[in-house]
Amino acid sequence: MARVLVLMGSDSDLPTMRKAIDALSEFGIETEVAVASAHRTPEKVVELVRAADGDGTCAIIAGAGMAAALPGVVAAHTTLPVIGVPLSGSALGGTDALYSIVQMPPGIPVATVGIDAAANAGLLAAQIAAVSDPGISEALKRHRTTMAEQVEARAQKVREELQSSQ
Amino acid sequence: MARVLVLMGSDSDLPTMRKAIDALSEFGIETEVAVASAHRTPEKVVELVRAADGDGTCAIIAGAGMAAALPGVVAAHTTLPVIGVPLSGSALGGTDALYSIVQMPPGIPVATVGIDAAANAGLLAAQIAAVSDPGISEALKRHRTTMAEQVEARAQKVREELQSSQ
Amino acid sequence: MARVLVLMGSDSDLPTMRKAIDALSEFGIETEVAVASAHRTPEKVVELVRAADGDGTCAIIAGAGMAAALPGVVAAHTTLPVIGVPLSGSALGGTDALYSIVQMPPGIPVATVGIDAAANAGLLAAQIAAVSDPGISEALKRHRTTMAEQVEARAQKVREELQSSQ
Amino acid sequence: MARVLVLMGSDSDLPTMRKAIDALSEFGIETEVAVASAHRTPEKVVELVRAADGDGTCAIIAGAGMAAALPGVVAAHTTLPVIGVPLSGSALGGTDALYSIVQMPPGIPVATVGIDAAANAGLLAAQIAAVSDPGISEALKRHRTTMAEQVEARAQKVREELQSSQ
Amino acid sequence: MARVLVLMGSDSDLPTMRKAIDALSEFGIETEVAVASAHRTPEKVVELVRAADGDGTCAIIAGAGMAAALPGVVAAHTTLPVIGVPLSGSALGGTDALYSIVQMPPGIPVATVGIDAAANAGLLAAQIAAVSDPGISEALKRHRTTMAEQVEARAQKVREELQSSQ
Amino acid sequence: MARVLVLMGSDSDLPTMRKAIDALSEFGIETEVAVASAHRTPEKVVELVRAADGDGTCAIIAGAGMAAALPGVVAAHTTLPVIGVPLSGSALGGTDALYSIVQMPPGIPVATVGIDAAANAGLLAAQIAAVSDPGISEALKRHRTTMAEQVEARAQKVREELQSSQ
Amino acid sequence: MARVLVLMGSDSDLPTMRKAIDALSEFGIETEVAVASAHRTPEKVVELVRAADGDGTCAIIAGAGMAAALPGVVAAHTTLPVIGVPLSGSALGGTDALYSIVQMPPGIPVATVGIDAAANAGLLAAQIAAVSDPGISEALKRHRTTMAEQVEARAQKVREELQSSQ
Amino acid sequence: MARVLVLMGSDSDLPTMRKAIDALSEFGIETEVAVASAHRTPEKVVELVRAADGDGTCAIIAGAGMAAALPGVVAAHTTLPVIGVPLSGSALGGTDALYSIVQMPPGIPVATVGIDAAANAGLLAAQIAAVSDPGISEALKRHRTTMAEQVEARAQKVREELQSSQ
Repeated sequence: MARVLVLMGSDSDLPTMRKAIDALSEFGIETEVAVASAHRTPEKVVELVRAADGDGTCAIIAGAGMAAALPGVVAAHTTLPVIGVPLSGSALGGTDALYSIVQMPPGIPVATVGIDAAANAGLLAAQIAAVSDPGISEALKRHRTTMAEQVEARAQKVREELQSSQ
Repeated sequence: MARVLVLMGSDSDLPTMRKAIDALSEFGIETEVAVASAHRTPEKVVELVRAADGDGTCAIIAGAGMAAALPGVVAAHTTLPVIGVPLSGSALGGTDALYSIVQMPPGIPVATVGIDAAANAGLLAAQIAAVSDPGISEALKRHRTTMAEQVEARAQKVREELQSSQ
Repeated sequence: MARVLVLMGSDSDLPTMRKAIDALSEFGIETEVAVASAHRTPEKVVELVRAADGDGTCAIIAGAGMAAALPGVVAAHTTLPVIGVPLSGSALGGTDALYSIVQMPPGIPVATVGIDAAANAGLLAAQIAAVSDPGISEALKRHRTTMAEQVEARAQKVREELQSSQ
Repeated sequence: MARVLVLMGSDSDLPTMRKAIDALSEFGIETEVAVASAHRTPEKVVELVRAADGDGTCAIIAGAGMAAALPGVVAAHTTLPVIGVPLSGSALGGTDALYSIVQMPPGIPVATVGIDAAANAGLLAAQIAAVSDPGISEALKRHRTTMAEQVEARAQKVREELQSSQ
Repeated sequence: MARVLVLMGSDSDLPTMRKAIDALSEFGIETEVAVASAHRTPEKVVELVRAADGDGTCAIIAGAGMAAALPGVVAAHTTLPVIGVPLSGSALGGTDALYSIVQMPPGIPVATVGIDAAANAGLLAAQIAAVSDPGISEALKRHRTTMAEQVEARAQKVREELQSSQ
Repeated sequence: MARVLVLMGSDSDLPTMRKAIDALSEFGIETEVAVASAHRTPEKVVELVRAADGDGTCAIIAGAGMAAALPGVVAAHTTLPVIGVPLSGSALGGTDALYSIVQMPPGIPVATVGIDAAANAGLLAAQIAAVSDPGISEALKRHRTTMAEQVEARAQKVREELQSSQ
Repeated sequence: MARVLVLMGSDSDLPTMRKAIDALSEFGIETEVAVASAHRTPEKVVELVRAADGDGTCAIIAGAGMAAALPGVVAAHTTLPVIGVPLSGSALGGTDALYSIVQMPPGIPVATVGIDAAANAGLLAAQIAAVSDPGISEALKRHRTTMAEQVEARAQKVREELQSSQ
Repeated sequence: MARVLVLMGSDSDLPTMRKAIDALSEFGIETEVAVASAHRTPEKVVELVRAADGDGTCAIIAGAGMAAALPGVVAAHTTLPVIGVPLSGSALGGTDALYSIVQMPPGIPVATVGIDAAANAGLLAAQIAAVSDPGISEALKRHRTTMAEQVEARAQKVREELQSSQ
């Protein structure tokens, strides 16, 4: 069974990062969730990452704000794919976190998603898991179809709303 | 054998994107390379992506500059992991490409790497391939060790340079 | 009779995009309105654009936020003038959408208006329709006069307000 | 025969703006070209714009850099579609011109293209002219096909280059 | 008696621009206030500026937001000192207005103050008036002393607040 | 006779700031030029500013780069109009200097011109001097006419160049 | 006993700057607190800084917003370490203050902390005091341990919260 | 004798970081210099930092570019003052490094200097060393005097240059 480690730098990041957990559970992917800070509990981060590398975990999601070192530090200690979620909330509105996560030096990539886009981080981890799991791959394709149907349903509602307002 | 599709929006992107191809070949990963533009040859993009989804390709790398729609359009047509490389070269220095690639809407993630960071895109694809390929996983760990040794060798050279300049 | 297709990437864009529809209806221009996403329902977008190209539609307005690929994707499938409306609402305040829409590659222009400026998008479409429709041209000129009179009326109110407060 | 007025704020803008003229001439569209500055020769601008409004001109292209008031001032004096080209070259790299052109107030739209994207401005003017000129419309469609073929030819060259370098 | 013309692009700018009027009236400087838009009532702007140039007006203050062309257009029609006030309120938070006002081309300066800093615009106009009016010059020096005393009084209050909270 | 004090934070700013001196000398305005740094020779700055305030100087121009405190510090010690010139040259391309100069707190305005726009600073000082000097006022109007004629002459050259290239 | 001078440009900065005072008092470091403005009471700033240099003060913390000259002006008058706190609150969200504080010219450094990060400024001053005070050094190490325990306690709470919500 | 540890993320950072070493040696401060990467050799970083904390080192200078995690990671492993130098060289011109270094979370400050401002980092470390070393304190005051004299000497040269060019 596929496993993903979801890390966040602070417990205040949970409301946003929970969307990653929810997205993963939708595809039946087991999540290990932990709060650990690259700056305040760095040994804990290394310990969690090393434990994940070898226990069947297929990707690590790390969310952090401001000088968001967590995803990069995680990536420094594993060759598993690491997905970084830049979190807004600072005076710089998440640009600080985005730059701190995406601009990694050569050799240590972080797969960065949009600001606060934890749900997309979960989906990306599912896509990675799906590379060797046809069941998840099928579920992802159904999810796309459902999503398209939802867009179409809302499009239909808009058409009706506009017609009735004429 | 692992396969990665490497797409670029223009042939002028080749010098940068070649670093992704080189990184992949270092890990023995087969690459399919194509030039196709989300805006100028959109059908070609869809065709290439659909062909890749099911032929054993485990990730798609797409590099583009300016209003860099290519990675997102690729992601819209597959559930394979898509890695986006924002390319600099415009008056906005790559910020336009970065925002156009990383800020994807809910449901369609793109794994974004740094501006012009095609080598990291290749490594990230290798990390995804490694999830189900222990050989690549081992090679990635060796690559990390080599990289650390190179940093250490250059650190040694700096120490010597500084001592001789005193 | 002039026709304009108004597309938006999500039904949540309707409150802003409705201003484009209202502006067009003020000039007696028929609007076809649809919700379709460049990333979630890409085939739908192509279908709508192809249907418009040839049925008398003189311009397409497309509004989208974040990595706003919609206007560019629309422009890729038609030679009708495409007007892009960057929508705010993301952590980057619309800069992401602006860059994603305005920085198109050579060969595929998008006529970009200001962030959330859907009313101006409607007016611009009317100006395009007016090139071959003297009636709309006259209506646009009257609209300018009315607008100037409104500015003047409000200027008069400011003068009175300032005099009474002295 | 379709006519487009091409304005630029300074003669030093000609190397960039010439691409708009070239794009238009490719579609057999007549161009009137003038240098006039919103700040240094404002009356001249008004005079040129008024002359164009009514002589068969179907669009005005205006390129300017820095506090690029020209496109907006042109738009203030006509209801013809006005296409603005933000020019780089200042310390702010064209961001100043982009914001000065695209962020127009309600009522006076400017169709903004990318920074230095004068060729796209020419194409957009051609698309506007094509609304009532089937010949230009056909030529635009052929141009798209040619452009796609060129992308494909260059893609082929990239494939060969990569194969020979293996 | 010194006179200053205070222009604003829209009546909605009055709450901010009133601070300029208040600052000027504090120094006994007469103000002529008008609403006129560089884009919606351009002739009105020119008319007001020409009337001011020669009637004893010593400076013109112009406040505008977004693609804030007003101060530059005013400066284009007079050699009186023109003070520009960039107004916030758009999605770009006033950066658009700041760039549109401060980045004037060679030959036509605008004396730009901070975003929404209308009170400072009033003070700057008073400083200009004071060059040839010793009475205003004395009043400005007294204003500085009063301001310093107010800072000192508040500093004293902070000291007391901190002591009582210990 | 009108006098202007021109200050710069470093002798390396002279090539840019000389344009202010040249602009002033064109209008027969005497300049006092000094290098003094708000951070490295702060007492010198205060001394120069105090000497200027009362010796007939009608404006002070201060150019500085990076954390450009000089114009604001000058303004803190005088009620003469202070014109700030943000200088580029740092990694932030002058945005740092622009923000450091234009965003002054309430009570202490700095009349900011564009990045590196020292010539415009000179013209603005001349406009301030002209408020009480009809000779300079006349010269400024002639300068505008000359400038317009130059634009027109270059416009004519562009027309000829374009005709001959057809 | 260690002493730190805490300066702020305005009494409205107290709610943020109080966090620096609180952080310092946690380590038993005496604080001298003063409100003084680089622009409105510049002599007062110099007086306070000179008094601090020689009375046992080991660092000066200066917080300011907008064109935040205070930290740099303080640094210009002392060789004590100066810690700058950029304050948000302006239309530019603190970017103006950050650039105005961090981009100091060669020779006059300011130790800049994050936007509104007054608590970190207090900690940094304590770290500087600790260089020659083993007691503070020990207290700082205990503070780190406590902080790590708090992160761990909250991490535990997150784990429980997630388990109970399954 | 005072000691400072100077770290850099890559040997390519040496030309810039050498200015910190030179500044420190000017004040007779011993430097330990090492190349170690937060992402490529993280254990080495921790090892170097732990060795420094307790061997008499009074400050650590860390320079890094892009997603510049090094200074923050260093600060996470010591309570010594850590000085961060954001390095330019990436597509984002050092803004990425600046944000990644200065926006540290509560509890772990980094004393950030300007982009590429390694000389100022050296001076700041000397100022910290001077808190408990009167000799360095005296040397820093002499350095200020020398610097002021150099500014004055160059100011004199500018005056002569301007006089001879008249």
